[in-house]
Amino acid sequence: MTVAEQILSGEIRAIARAATQIENGRAEALLRELFPHTGKALILGVTGAPGSGKSTLCDQLTRALRAEQKKVAILAIDPSSPFSGGAILGDRIRMQHHHADNRVFIRSMATRGWLGGLSRATTEMTMLLDAAGYDVVIVETVGVGQDEVEIARLAAVTLLVLTPGTGDDVQALKAGIMEIAQVFVINKSDQPGAEKLERDVKNTLALAHSEKPMPEVVRAVASEGQGIAEVLAAVERFGAQAEDPSRGAEIWSLRLREMLRERLLDRFPPEEFLEAGRDIAEHKRDPYGILNDWLKRI
Amino acid sequence: MTVAEQILSGEIRAIARAATQIENGRAEALLRELFPHTGKALILGVTGAPGSGKSTLCDQLTRALRAEQKKVAILAIDPSSPFSGGAILGDRIRMQHHHADNRVFIRSMATRGWLGGLSRATTEMTMLLDAAGYDVVIVETVGVGQDEVEIARLAAVTLLVLTPGTGDDVQALKAGIMEIAQVFVINKSDQPGAEKLERDVKNTLALAHSEKPMPEVVRAVASEGQGIAEVLAAVERFGAQAEDPSRGAEIWSLRLREMLRERLLDRFPPEEFLEAGRDIAEHKRDPYGILNDWLKRI
Repeated sequence: MTVAEQILSGEIRAIARAATQIENGRAEALLRELFPHTGKALILGVTGAPGSGKSTLCDQLTRALRAEQKKVAILAIDPSSPFSGGAILGDRIRMQHHHADNRVFIRSMATRGWLGGLSRATTEMTMLLDAAGYDVVIVETVGVGQDEVEIARLAAVTLLVLTPGTGDDVQALKAGIMEIAQVFVINKSDQPGAEKLERDVKNTLALAHSEKPMPEVVRAVASEGQGIAEVLAAVERFGAQAEDPSRGAEIWSLRLREMLRERLLDRFPPEEFLEAGRDIAEHKRDPYGILNDWLKRI
Repeated sequence: MTVAEQILSGEIRAIARAATQIENGRAEALLRELFPHTGKALILGVTGAPGSGKSTLCDQLTRALRAEQKKVAILAIDPSSPFSGGAILGDRIRMQHHHADNRVFIRSMATRGWLGGLSRATTEMTMLLDAAGYDVVIVETVGVGQDEVEIARLAAVTLLVLTPGTGDDVQALKAGIMEIAQVFVINKSDQPGAEKLERDVKNTLALAHSEKPMPEVVRAVASEGQGIAEVLAAVERFGAQAEDPSRGAEIWSLRLREMLRERLLDRFPPEEFLEAGRDIAEHKRDPYGILNDWLKRI
């Protein structure tokens, strides 16, 4: 069997090797071979502040999907923020009980480098796991910055986990709220402030003007398994919409942009940046002169 | 007087107009004119989790610098994270008492778009304010993700604010800790856990191997004004090192990379991404075929 055939038949070791190839940026030929076999998996992005219970929710969603005999892959994206390093380790340990289940694939991805690389690798990893026959690929981001939100948006459906009492100010999002997620989960909804938070999210959504389908707001207590079926149902409704060609085009245009960005920067070796940086620091040349020269060259 | 002359003489209205030009991506000609007059300001990046007291610290540093008759500019960078929207508004209001002081320039920068744009604009804004005669330009980032850390690294000196009891796990940073900041401020150091946090930071630093100068760890209670002089002294020591050509080259190479990234992506209009995205979603073409065609074209 070729490597692609091994992956298409779901062989874990072949998948893990391909994942490493993707991280090293050398999987293009393989992914072109796999591409015709993609498009079946539901790609779900999960984002939210540290402590919001994202991992517990992902864990519970995985259990529920496994109960339906679905194969699940989880990509934990950690852009090596100085603030999330601790959390992800704990989260990974919590998820380990799924490791005994060979129909659940779990992989952590981190980078100390530039975000472009992580977005490209995330997209490629979802293509790989889609081709390998996983029904649902969960992309769980660890941090709370714009970058994590962007990575989550590379998914077909994005879920934002909010919790009462953490100062998540959804009203500040205003019109932008429709861009962030399709499913808003009010987690720890047995805690004080849950109703106010839910009301705030709903009011903000009601005021946002958009052509897009109205997001759903779902209450849950992930640690107790409450609301999981409702979250999953909402995710699946939006997953079905993502099969619409215009939504598919939108998702792929975001992914392409990230992939292009990395390809373009790869053409300039680090030494060239450093040498140009030296000239600027010494005021021999100005940055625009250098940029214009480079742009002329390519 | 030309616009550049007005800026060089510190005219606030000319500076504010130029800042708007930068945000709109149309300030190249002006910045080339200003470039020879840059290189005098100390550019200080300040990062840290929400609630760490970053803004209070920036506020106190500004007071201390003003007491030395220095001109201070503050750029508050908000990458429009869904979680930071609330915080920045409050922070800005707190800073307003400086608004009466025309030797303190304050500007908030936000984007709903791609990070590349914000990095480029931040670099250009520091060039503008440097030329305009501000002695210190503070770049304060609001979120906690990798993107904020990267923006802070575009500064000559980066300061990371940590607080006890928030679960900031510095040990998880390990070898990467040297890349994050030169000055680590243990803020709210009158609270329980401050000594342990300080010890953790110092131990982690001691174990990191790097050619770089050892970062400094300073305790502070920004809300009481404690430790501000010590923080400022540490910043100034590293500021002097940033004048070293090799460090200057490193800073400018990071900035150039961000500027180049935006220039390159500008060549591809959004419609082109959307059209290509549609072809991929319909499986007419694969993403690599499209990327390779594009790369051939430029």
